[in-house]
Amino acid sequence: MQKVAIIGVGQTRFGDLIDKKAEELFAEAFLEALNDVDKGIDISEIQEVYIGNSGVGGGQLGNFSSLMTDHLGLTGAAALRIENACASSGFAMRAAVLAVSSGVCDVALAGGEEKMNDTPRKRVRYWLGISGDMEWERLSGMTFAGVFALMAIRHMHEYGTKREHLAMVSVKNHKNGASNPKAHLQRETTLERALASPMVAYPLTLFDCCPISDGASAVIVCRADLAKKYTDTPVYVAGHGASTDRLSVFQREDVTSINSSIVAARQAFKMASVKPEDIDVAEVHDCFTIAEIIAYEDLGFCPKGKGWKLLEEGQTEIGGKIPVNPSGGLKSKGHPVGATGTGQIYEIVNQLRGSVEKKNRQVSGAEIGLTHNTGGSGGTTVVHILKR
Amino acid sequence: MQKVAIIGVGQTRFGDLIDKKAEELFAEAFLEALNDVDKGIDISEIQEVYIGNSGVGGGQLGNFSSLMTDHLGLTGAAALRIENACASSGFAMRAAVLAVSSGVCDVALAGGEEKMNDTPRKRVRYWLGISGDMEWERLSGMTFAGVFALMAIRHMHEYGTKREHLAMVSVKNHKNGASNPKAHLQRETTLERALASPMVAYPLTLFDCCPISDGASAVIVCRADLAKKYTDTPVYVAGHGASTDRLSVFQREDVTSINSSIVAARQAFKMASVKPEDIDVAEVHDCFTIAEIIAYEDLGFCPKGKGWKLLEEGQTEIGGKIPVNPSGGLKSKGHPVGATGTGQIYEIVNQLRGSVEKKNRQVSGAEIGLTHNTGGSGGTTVVHILKR
Repeated sequence: MQKVAIIGVGQTRFGDLIDKKAEELFAEAFLEALNDVDKGIDISEIQEVYIGNSGVGGGQLGNFSSLMTDHLGLTGAAALRIENACASSGFAMRAAVLAVSSGVCDVALAGGEEKMNDTPRKRVRYWLGISGDMEWERLSGMTFAGVFALMAIRHMHEYGTKREHLAMVSVKNHKNGASNPKAHLQRETTLERALASPMVAYPLTLFDCCPISDGASAVIVCRADLAKKYTDTPVYVAGHGASTDRLSVFQREDVTSINSSIVAARQAFKMASVKPEDIDVAEVHDCFTIAEIIAYEDLGFCPKGKGWKLLEEGQTEIGGKIPVNPSGGLKSKGHPVGATGTGQIYEIVNQLRGSVEKKNRQVSGAEIGLTHNTGGSGGTTVVHILKR
Repeated sequence: MQKVAIIGVGQTRFGDLIDKKAEELFAEAFLEALNDVDKGIDISEIQEVYIGNSGVGGGQLGNFSSLMTDHLGLTGAAALRIENACASSGFAMRAAVLAVSSGVCDVALAGGEEKMNDTPRKRVRYWLGISGDMEWERLSGMTFAGVFALMAIRHMHEYGTKREHLAMVSVKNHKNGASNPKAHLQRETTLERALASPMVAYPLTLFDCCPISDGASAVIVCRADLAKKYTDTPVYVAGHGASTDRLSVFQREDVTSINSSIVAARQAFKMASVKPEDIDVAEVHDCFTIAEIIAYEDLGFCPKGKGWKLLEEGQTEIGGKIPVNPSGGLKSKGHPVGATGTGQIYEIVNQLRGSVEKKNRQVSGAEIGLTHNTGGSGGTTVVHILKR
């Protein structure tokens, strides 16, 4: 299998970007990725384009990839849009990697985009809702917050996880996001404030839920043996994995784990020939705070049921054993659904290069990083392992 | 690049299938493909799933691939949904081929599904509309029929194509579809009737437009060197190509050609080391009759502007030099948007095996076939060349 390297990454600020069109947002991320290729690249070298977009808003909903290549000056390239709910661009990344691995092209673009704030809130809720199970969950009134609340309650019951642990995820991620100039919510919070914030679905408060964001992200990949032609600081895709779980949580044997995460991570670790303890930094899918705790366990950063212990010991903070979500994560950096997956790649690439814009967010000496991007309540998951 | 073979194909009847859910339809196509693998296959061998769906209707619109793996018993496999308008499953096919080519898996499933008849007509029109250019075409009232009518008028002006030639495409495809038990419109028509049918957008009448259909299709692919383990009659993916054109027709230099078709075909011919004259049978994207004539020219079956001549000479009829759309094409077989691309693969595989259910539809001795699947008015196109 042809090895693949990342040679350029770009990301817009995530946030309420109502003044920009979908194609403008994506072009902004793409141009940053293009300029990030330090030895230069001609856009005609980009032969394949994979764009994640869940389809919430932005005007052009069908044939989206053609509109994007149109605006990027990439008309002629093979292009396609991937919709895998909140994991859309994580899967776009993997598809771009597979395209290069197959030998069909030398250079490919992966990216994602979502416009959510120019769409009425009711429609955003509807659109997010249809990424969960329509028949058994949504039509009985179960929202995503409700589904993750079920997971949290069961996790608390089985493993002694407390509301305080959920809030600690929020406090940590807001602290990181406060120093991230591209984060949606660039402000810190406190344990007290998080716990006292309005209840959304017990035990999840407002501070346990990620915001509704707009944004775009882009990653340029190429054959690993050509990478040094484009940059002195390539980052290699050492492994990847992808899997599905039952769509509706009631069909799953255990709601305190997400099986698609476990399977995808296992594949990625095997391909990269590394173990969970080798990971120096990770971006995981914390759409709700409980999801980050479950991710610690599913990815093998701690034994099952001990996610809370990592938090109590501060091991997932910057400076800890395994810093998680140094970008602020979905919670603070924001979650423009289709842009999140390649946004995670953007962060890990900068962490591995040592090029994070503010030193207090930089995980020092990180050599191996991981991204974990989940769709819906775990119906789909994709994991990447990146190496310097 | 690892070579890829097709070992099983399945397709539902296309038509008004309002009594079946999206997942039931796709499961029907999948089970047929599974049973079509004559030496048998265990579903656990299917490691990757690529599903084309444009998202018109059917209930579950987000995280669609997870719902599908759920209902197929494929939970755990990597799965993703591809939306490239009317070319969604053509691109799903190519993505599945690239996955196998990359070496990440031995066996993959490509397929497509669309439910259109359980959705109010107004919403179907809206949904189809947003696969064209929203900003410059749809918001000025330009429908797809309008866009293809512009192409037709210019083609008539430049090359002497007549309304009768458009109608000849319709008559040919209806004749083929009348003998296809899986076609939506299983009835013949006459030149007189086609010409006298209600005008939709001059010069296109009702008989120049494909119907609104429901349906699903599925294709199982594997590493070519493993194909004989699964079947005695593998069909090989000899070449493929994919490209984009400007989304809006006003941005194109020439509206009598679709550049994404020309580029995709060139790539596919090069990879397969064959020429247009080597193709024994083709399924092309005749969403409107003019699109089939333009496809003849873009694919190199005749010189530019001479598509009408192939029709006058009957060369694209079964028995002619290059039979096109023996299935009935989108015009008569139907066009359940997301299912069309892999539906074309279904037809060509059966043509190359000599296993078409009715002898009058069988192109005798066909060894090399081509599929051509276009999204929107040509914003995206994917071409496959298959060999016995």
